[in-house]
Amino acid sequence: MLKIGILGCGRIGQVHARAIKAVEGATVTALADALPQAASALAATTGAEVRSVEAILTAPDIDAIVIGTPTDSHFDQIMGAAANGKAIFCEKPVDMSVDNIRRCIEAVERAGVPFLTGFNRRFDPNFAALRARLRAGEIGAVELVTITSRDPAPPPVSYIARSGGLFRDMMIHDFDMARFLMGEDFVRLHAMGSALVDPAIGEAGDVDTAAVILTTASGRICQISNSRRAAYGYDQRIEVHGALGMLRAENQLETTVELATDQGFRRAPAQHFFLERYEAAYLAEMRAFVTAVTTGTAPEPGIHDGLQAQLLADAATRSRETGQPVDIGG
Amino acid sequence: MLKIGILGCGRIGQVHARAIKAVEGATVTALADALPQAASALAATTGAEVRSVEAILTAPDIDAIVIGTPTDSHFDQIMGAAANGKAIFCEKPVDMSVDNIRRCIEAVERAGVPFLTGFNRRFDPNFAALRARLRAGEIGAVELVTITSRDPAPPPVSYIARSGGLFRDMMIHDFDMARFLMGEDFVRLHAMGSALVDPAIGEAGDVDTAAVILTTASGRICQISNSRRAAYGYDQRIEVHGALGMLRAENQLETTVELATDQGFRRAPAQHFFLERYEAAYLAEMRAFVTAVTTGTAPEPGIHDGLQAQLLADAATRSRETGQPVDIGG
Amino acid sequence: MLKIGILGCGRIGQVHARAIKAVEGATVTALADALPQAASALAATTGAEVRSVEAILTAPDIDAIVIGTPTDSHFDQIMGAAANGKAIFCEKPVDMSVDNIRRCIEAVERAGVPFLTGFNRRFDPNFAALRARLRAGEIGAVELVTITSRDPAPPPVSYIARSGGLFRDMMIHDFDMARFLMGEDFVRLHAMGSALVDPAIGEAGDVDTAAVILTTASGRICQISNSRRAAYGYDQRIEVHGALGMLRAENQLETTVELATDQGFRRAPAQHFFLERYEAAYLAEMRAFVTAVTTGTAPEPGIHDGLQAQLLADAATRSRETGQPVDIGG
Amino acid sequence: MLKIGILGCGRIGQVHARAIKAVEGATVTALADALPQAASALAATTGAEVRSVEAILTAPDIDAIVIGTPTDSHFDQIMGAAANGKAIFCEKPVDMSVDNIRRCIEAVERAGVPFLTGFNRRFDPNFAALRARLRAGEIGAVELVTITSRDPAPPPVSYIARSGGLFRDMMIHDFDMARFLMGEDFVRLHAMGSALVDPAIGEAGDVDTAAVILTTASGRICQISNSRRAAYGYDQRIEVHGALGMLRAENQLETTVELATDQGFRRAPAQHFFLERYEAAYLAEMRAFVTAVTTGTAPEPGIHDGLQAQLLADAATRSRETGQPVDIGG
Repeated sequence: MLKIGILGCGRIGQVHARAIKAVEGATVTALADALPQAASALAATTGAEVRSVEAILTAPDIDAIVIGTPTDSHFDQIMGAAANGKAIFCEKPVDMSVDNIRRCIEAVERAGVPFLTGFNRRFDPNFAALRARLRAGEIGAVELVTITSRDPAPPPVSYIARSGGLFRDMMIHDFDMARFLMGEDFVRLHAMGSALVDPAIGEAGDVDTAAVILTTASGRICQISNSRRAAYGYDQRIEVHGALGMLRAENQLETTVELATDQGFRRAPAQHFFLERYEAAYLAEMRAFVTAVTTGTAPEPGIHDGLQAQLLADAATRSRETGQPVDIGG
Repeated sequence: MLKIGILGCGRIGQVHARAIKAVEGATVTALADALPQAASALAATTGAEVRSVEAILTAPDIDAIVIGTPTDSHFDQIMGAAANGKAIFCEKPVDMSVDNIRRCIEAVERAGVPFLTGFNRRFDPNFAALRARLRAGEIGAVELVTITSRDPAPPPVSYIARSGGLFRDMMIHDFDMARFLMGEDFVRLHAMGSALVDPAIGEAGDVDTAAVILTTASGRICQISNSRRAAYGYDQRIEVHGALGMLRAENQLETTVELATDQGFRRAPAQHFFLERYEAAYLAEMRAFVTAVTTGTAPEPGIHDGLQAQLLADAATRSRETGQPVDIGG
Repeated sequence: MLKIGILGCGRIGQVHARAIKAVEGATVTALADALPQAASALAATTGAEVRSVEAILTAPDIDAIVIGTPTDSHFDQIMGAAANGKAIFCEKPVDMSVDNIRRCIEAVERAGVPFLTGFNRRFDPNFAALRARLRAGEIGAVELVTITSRDPAPPPVSYIARSGGLFRDMMIHDFDMARFLMGEDFVRLHAMGSALVDPAIGEAGDVDTAAVILTTASGRICQISNSRRAAYGYDQRIEVHGALGMLRAENQLETTVELATDQGFRRAPAQHFFLERYEAAYLAEMRAFVTAVTTGTAPEPGIHDGLQAQLLADAATRSRETGQPVDIGG
Repeated sequence: MLKIGILGCGRIGQVHARAIKAVEGATVTALADALPQAASALAATTGAEVRSVEAILTAPDIDAIVIGTPTDSHFDQIMGAAANGKAIFCEKPVDMSVDNIRRCIEAVERAGVPFLTGFNRRFDPNFAALRARLRAGEIGAVELVTITSRDPAPPPVSYIARSGGLFRDMMIHDFDMARFLMGEDFVRLHAMGSALVDPAIGEAGDVDTAAVILTTASGRICQISNSRRAAYGYDQRIEVHGALGMLRAENQLETTVELATDQGFRRAPAQHFFLERYEAAYLAEMRAFVTAVTTGTAPEPGIHDGLQAQLLADAATRSRETGQPVDIGG
């Protein structure tokens, strides 16, 4: 039985607690949150014990840590968990600073602890199936990847102001997905973005609508677009074009019901947001973490994947600010 | 150049005139209609000559007759055309009386003239492709055929009163389609029907909503349903279930445009009615007729197909009236 | 906390145990099965106690019974549960004998215990949403209901031989769905059926492919078709046609991934069978039962719904055997 | 009756001849082609007279010229037609040289002759409907336009070598579509492209796979991607995201038939190429031209639209070559 300590009992911590409950061979032993009520509420539904972060990181009865705290707490918690030999499941982004991520990598590798970066979309059954079929050669060599991500509505401007910006906060998922699908490193990127949804987002120095093109050394192309608003629900689509055809994954709709009237044929909106759409992904992600830790294999996506996605997000941020393409890596 | 005389210059006569114009190797030489203005209007757009029905039937410069007059004129015109050795394209139904159809068959076969019964749906590119793939064995042996036909709106009650009833006027197309797809004769049928769309249709002795089950000697099953009203356009669907899977043909929508809003994903209505949906079918039908006549092969569907569909429509009418199943053939 | 005893720890008992685990306010206290290993295996994953059926039925620490045993055990267990004042969740069919169901109704009503008949499809999120929108008037008055049910593959002939036949074993779900959607009693029915999938099914006196038409007093029509085989997965579709349009629910596919090649556009098969397709339905069903029992409202579908569906299944069986329509009720 | 002279009797000249035949109020009076057989073949099916280009440009019995010759002939023919006061329908691109197009504009405006640039996709019923609904405000202000164009297979390398490159030869259609949909000028563009389909295309100095991002002064974004190869047919899709939702137009498939087997649900490939997909568009385009000329309104898209699209194609070519974004206009 893998005994897990959860740091952070907000929305995402609760998602992971629910997932752990449904995974065989794992249990939530302890949890911590800066807000006492958040911790005790989750303790009540899980049966876990409320402790301090420090107590959890050093506890001998804890095997693995799930980090779902605000991003600026990640660094210390990762360093602490690594120092104490705990397996680590850390929500994205690992850290806003690439330098900090590199220091985490060093600590994690020195300690030899398993590390999973929480890019949950890799575990979505649709995207995972698409990628498996891609790797199985169903459409031959990849030529062009198109990723569309649109949130149902923008977060509060107060959140945006300290989010690191759309490319680091939202599109980072798509950068990881692009890497996951492409199977070759990107070498160049150009990003454009605007504040069209809400001028206040622009005043906060961020964009809410953006498009990026990335290319690999062999010339493969990826285009990503993001919007902070989609009237019809959480829009999460992928399309990969290859030598032999195309693989694409459409949205999951709320139901399969269709209404036909003189206005035409109307299906349901897309599932509202990530809690609905990625419910199965969160479960599969936790199962993959528990399996990797208990069998001694390296979890994927690992901490290097967290670093690479952050590097792309930084590059996109710079490209958007300068209006120039950015070379990556080297 | 196949020289064609058109009898009946109403809506369907105009459809056939347009089709002939687009078919290589055929021309409209003459046309007739009980309403002089209808004839002269169609003459103006085709360049054909207005003549009497009798003159057309006996004209030495006419090779083939297209009959698009009211049903109660068909018998005399078929007999006249056969007597004069003309190839015949006759709109469905051949005649309301099975005895009359049998007399037509005798005359047509004695004269040895080609005869096509205007079951246009066999020529719809979707249904034709479905049937070809069925015959090619893509789903193995047929087990269950489901046919759905719904008109956008009922015709005037005055039309319904002299139409022969829904089974002979509307479902006759589906009976022919059932035979076309099944590839085995039906032996038994049960029909149920109601006037739900308009009580005046019921008062006229007819139904506007109906469902029929038919079975073959080997136990294959076909279910057909009809409605005189569909808010979302002309609903024309087919589904065939076989040992290895299913083949189905969906509606053609007005456009491929889809609108996504907080109400969901909305596509266009189905193409409004038969003129839109079966435009390509009418053209293919005429091309098949001209090709058959000019190459000396037998057109399909022939006059026997017209008879068989009428027998099924008669049986369904009787079944609905008596509430009992009806055995067919023998 | 509603304390539940599960009778029968086979596939469906396990489904219900999993559902109870996920429902707040309910727990599995005890379970029983004729096979000791089945009981102890489920006890191990639920933490419940293994007892005898009798002990569970009379236990003071049990509030509700979930009956997932073979059909011929239902009668005694229902009578026992009612006699001991337990709430009852009983898998369909309640009993193969309409007389027995009537005796159960008497006992249940005398005891005043809540009773839910396990027609799980009413709780499928798609079908439930369709029905709610139907009742909300989105397509006006119902005119024509079409229900399609096809299993991925037939059960063993040994199962079929003691199943009561396709109409009682498989189509009974569709009869309940027809009642659920129509909102008016059926008065007449005609069934046709054949053994096309496997001649051994025919030799066992049953059919594997069937179609039924039902009508209500006001002339509304329902057509149901069943097959014991569908190459493309569990085919579960509903279509309701009304005065203002159509509502339909399509299959849930395994994923949303689509492959486009020179062969066309290929989506995934339908979810394989009921465990996958109705996973959410089973959970919603159990939640509805627990909520009804704990709040003192009558669960739906109740035992009368179990009776009505059985009456339709009996009528369809008779109709298929005699080749004649059957009048219902009165 | 608008009397039309066709210059160029190749594939596209034949398309236009067929369209003119179907448009009321227009006729092909004369035609010319460098290959005598091509001219006489089209003369035979249209009944038009074969003449020289010069004779047609100066003929008093010709009202309008349709230019479907190779691009390097357009300039002289436009200048000749303008000088002789003929209405002009010119295939895209107007000319490879922006300077030449500017001289054509001067000549056309001085002569006051109507001019339509053959961006046929604006007339596709799906795209035209999408745009009309966009303008009607169905999704509010446009924020993000996504255009996907993929040819079924690359043209011969010999063609590519003298085509002006993918951006001028193929993506020019998408640039016009982007302008058509966006309703605001683009100010900046970044293009990336590779030769992934065929290295010989790269050796000829061109690309076969490309993606471009364009932005407008107000920050709206358009992303376009092209491939010279799509196994599943001619891939022509548009998606517009706005404040209130999304409008998109999917491909037209060869038929509506769907096959369901253990491999899943398979629909037909997309219509093969432009002759099939844009058949209705070519007809609507010609009808629009004839209507504009005969009613004295300005045809759209006009010659300025031809210029603007060429400017974008030039900018994209430069961007791809330099690896830098390009500012447009000013």
